[in-house]
Amino acid sequence: MQTIPSYLCDEWVTGAEPFETLLDPSTEEPLARASTVGLPVGPALEHARRVGGPALRRLSFQERGALLEAVSRALHGAREELIELAVRNGGNTRGDAKFDIDGATATLSAYAALGKQLGDKRWLLDGEPTEVAGARLQGWHVLAPRHGVAVHIGAFNFPTWGWAEKAACAWLAGVPVLTKPAPSTALVTWRSVELALQAGVLPAGTLSLLSGAPGELLDHVQWQDTIAFTGSSATGERIKSHPRVLASGARVNVEADSLNAAVLLPDAPPNVVDAFVRDVTRDITQKAGQKCTAIRRVLVPRALLEQVRERLCEALADVTVGDPSQDAVRMGPLTTALQRERFQAGVRELRTQTRVVFGEPAAQVQAAAPDKGFFVSPMLLEAAGALSAPRVHELEVFGPVATLLPYESVEEAAEAVRAGRGGLVSSLYGDDRQQLAALIEALSPWLGRLVVVDSKIADKSLAPGTVLPTLLHGGPGRAGGGEELGGLRGLRLYQQRTALQGNGGLLGKLVAVGS
Amino acid sequence: MQTIPSYLCDEWVTGAEPFETLLDPSTEEPLARASTVGLPVGPALEHARRVGGPALRRLSFQERGALLEAVSRALHGAREELIELAVRNGGNTRGDAKFDIDGATATLSAYAALGKQLGDKRWLLDGEPTEVAGARLQGWHVLAPRHGVAVHIGAFNFPTWGWAEKAACAWLAGVPVLTKPAPSTALVTWRSVELALQAGVLPAGTLSLLSGAPGELLDHVQWQDTIAFTGSSATGERIKSHPRVLASGARVNVEADSLNAAVLLPDAPPNVVDAFVRDVTRDITQKAGQKCTAIRRVLVPRALLEQVRERLCEALADVTVGDPSQDAVRMGPLTTALQRERFQAGVRELRTQTRVVFGEPAAQVQAAAPDKGFFVSPMLLEAAGALSAPRVHELEVFGPVATLLPYESVEEAAEAVRAGRGGLVSSLYGDDRQQLAALIEALSPWLGRLVVVDSKIADKSLAPGTVLPTLLHGGPGRAGGGEELGGLRGLRLYQQRTALQGNGGLLGKLVAVGS
Repeated sequence: MQTIPSYLCDEWVTGAEPFETLLDPSTEEPLARASTVGLPVGPALEHARRVGGPALRRLSFQERGALLEAVSRALHGAREELIELAVRNGGNTRGDAKFDIDGATATLSAYAALGKQLGDKRWLLDGEPTEVAGARLQGWHVLAPRHGVAVHIGAFNFPTWGWAEKAACAWLAGVPVLTKPAPSTALVTWRSVELALQAGVLPAGTLSLLSGAPGELLDHVQWQDTIAFTGSSATGERIKSHPRVLASGARVNVEADSLNAAVLLPDAPPNVVDAFVRDVTRDITQKAGQKCTAIRRVLVPRALLEQVRERLCEALADVTVGDPSQDAVRMGPLTTALQRERFQAGVRELRTQTRVVFGEPAAQVQAAAPDKGFFVSPMLLEAAGALSAPRVHELEVFGPVATLLPYESVEEAAEAVRAGRGGLVSSLYGDDRQQLAALIEALSPWLGRLVVVDSKIADKSLAPGTVLPTLLHGGPGRAGGGEELGGLRGLRLYQQRTALQGNGGLLGKLVAVGS
Repeated sequence: MQTIPSYLCDEWVTGAEPFETLLDPSTEEPLARASTVGLPVGPALEHARRVGGPALRRLSFQERGALLEAVSRALHGAREELIELAVRNGGNTRGDAKFDIDGATATLSAYAALGKQLGDKRWLLDGEPTEVAGARLQGWHVLAPRHGVAVHIGAFNFPTWGWAEKAACAWLAGVPVLTKPAPSTALVTWRSVELALQAGVLPAGTLSLLSGAPGELLDHVQWQDTIAFTGSSATGERIKSHPRVLASGARVNVEADSLNAAVLLPDAPPNVVDAFVRDVTRDITQKAGQKCTAIRRVLVPRALLEQVRERLCEALADVTVGDPSQDAVRMGPLTTALQRERFQAGVRELRTQTRVVFGEPAAQVQAAAPDKGFFVSPMLLEAAGALSAPRVHELEVFGPVATLLPYESVEEAAEAVRAGRGGLVSSLYGDDRQQLAALIEALSPWLGRLVVVDSKIADKSLAPGTVLPTLLHGGPGRAGGGEELGGLRGLRLYQQRTALQGNGGLLGKLVAVGS
């Protein structure tokens, strides 16, 4: 069986016993094994700080952008190989796999373009110079790359995009990366990291890979390091309160999952209702619902409930579940046995306050091997009212399930969205300007992103669950309070903002010398 | 004896036994007592959220700015009374007291002016709209006020400026404030808060005061709250890792003290050397060295050591220590017996690696009462080399002491500054552009603010320890990683950044409707 190596101190190394085994979630056949036991994590971080950091800081933004573009091309060049690997290792359909891989290459390219725009600078100004006292004594805020490592701890559901979007921001900011994927899909991350390294453009020390359990990783962080984590709130809290993380003062960014909502407005025109049904269906089934941005709460005016329920059930009935390597299959298995266990337990819990309107946990699937694979049926639940089922607003079930919530007034819909205690993204479907403006005002402080789908763009709008390099990704409250992407905003996590105070004429020359 | 009340749920209330007693640090006479025992902290926070938040959010930036201006005027109108109170309660000289009080009114006024500039808007855009897909599908990043309370936990050394600078940012952002001063100087905070309330302009629920120990304050925070703390790193870590803070996901900003450095460059012209000596002397003695931004490490080229030492010793010899109410006195006592104890222990520890070049712990003072008061002598220590005394770069002694560190090369000076592991502010004195540019590049990631004093502005430069509303206040690493002030940047702590995604034409109208 293949052993997945790690890449530390610019060498491929493998951990010792005990190993974790990665399975094909469609067949439950072992695919590979991984271990981080005994690996030199501390020296690897120090190598990144001492070798990788200075190398990246010497480059201009444009030069760093060229690295990103080369890595993007390397991944795109092996797109077919990565898709096949993701089908086997992640239970992804080809569409699911493309979503992950193309997301990675597009994000790298978008940041490459930003680097090109910034040209031969090596640091950025934050806003315009300010007069402090008279015209001569000024303040210039600069954004300087931190001298630590970007420690990236990823989730299993986006094994390529997950590390690439984080690396794009860190590298463009001038900061080296150590990436630690979730073990269950580490095969895809390993191969995409290998491809990035094989592109031959990354300076020594700028990319390290720790394939497997974190082990003592956090015990080695230093105060100029940045930890960016994507995963559960519980793990996020553990990272934030880790004694070494606290004592060191390392920066922490957490992207946790959330109970994203989609709200259909009362007078939504037909093409907006179509977009709503299309987006909800896609979010239930894409990647078998294993998306941190997936719509979990489906808010519809009571008058439209029957129509929407019927259309969603019809759409879900069209989804073939099974072996993701088959063309006809629209939804693969969950990624691990544990995910399936949690999904089933979560649905049981939600069912105590809702009724099932679509889905059958024991449904037939078009499986690759009889009685094998972590398959589940897509499920649609329904609550009696928007606020009648509290668990729907508290418990995230990470799989192909959403709950229909009929609401009586736009105010109640807003209250229901807010009952999720903060989220990555929610979406509004309709044309009524007054209602949209009121909802934007009521919901903005609760969300990192808010998507408005009106009749003019309903046909070409992007699904709310699609994370874009130009827009902020992250949200307050249960979503972890983090901020990633959003164009140059995404670099801030890896930069120190410093106010330079002094003779404005001189500062202008010094910052020009420095850049 | 006066009992200092708290202001909760728009009522003045007093806590129960046991009380803490506030002393006049010059005479050790009891001045007042304070307690938060049994006070309704949870209901007060909820009152602020339910009554104060909506009231502020209804106002435009201009209207919020007008509140700030009114509060600034109310404090300025009682300037003499506040100065007298600060002399008695804080052991401040009149100059020390003015620094605190005028800092408060100036910061409130500066943010009032920003509010006026923003006019009748109620929310802010963050950057320009971005094209997402074609010209029509756009992203607009908005900054919306969070719906929680700003929980402000202050330090004893700036009882007026400390709460006012934080409140200025929170109020202008549209967020109500509960402020908790350090008990030892709570008399000044209480009176200035009372003056702010008596101005009669603040909507109900927008300002609460908890005079004394925090008690169960943090047990009541919710995820839309923001905690902004100024004080020691140790307390900052306790707040960050408080179970309720972690579980709630409340935002936390920490401003901790730091080992700020001043670097004199080798070829500094005479007026720059003068400014250097002036700034170091001021920072040792102003507020008896009890300033989070005070210069603790004085880096001088070895060739200039003797000259600088001599001039600093002369300047310090001119400083009369004693009863701060007397005009001739330039430095008052430390604020509490505990501060004096810690100062003396800290100096003892630094002396194991340095020698004393000025100061005598048992020196005579011009005291108000014989053998009373928490007086100490200003002290100047000297190490053999810039990096020869590790404790100088690790241990902050919060009082009138700094250490001379002779350096051999500009690279060594940079290494020494960086040995402080992150700070609020440091300063460079000289004209050599190449050296200045190299130091700015080397030090920026280590600092929240970097002051450059060249010969053209040496005579009118502001002391590096002066925190300005237009420039960032906060620093990485041991300084806590926080960011306050810096003009509109200071509002970010109280805002959620949200990406609106949709039809650009429509978003433009919706954000206009909302604002």
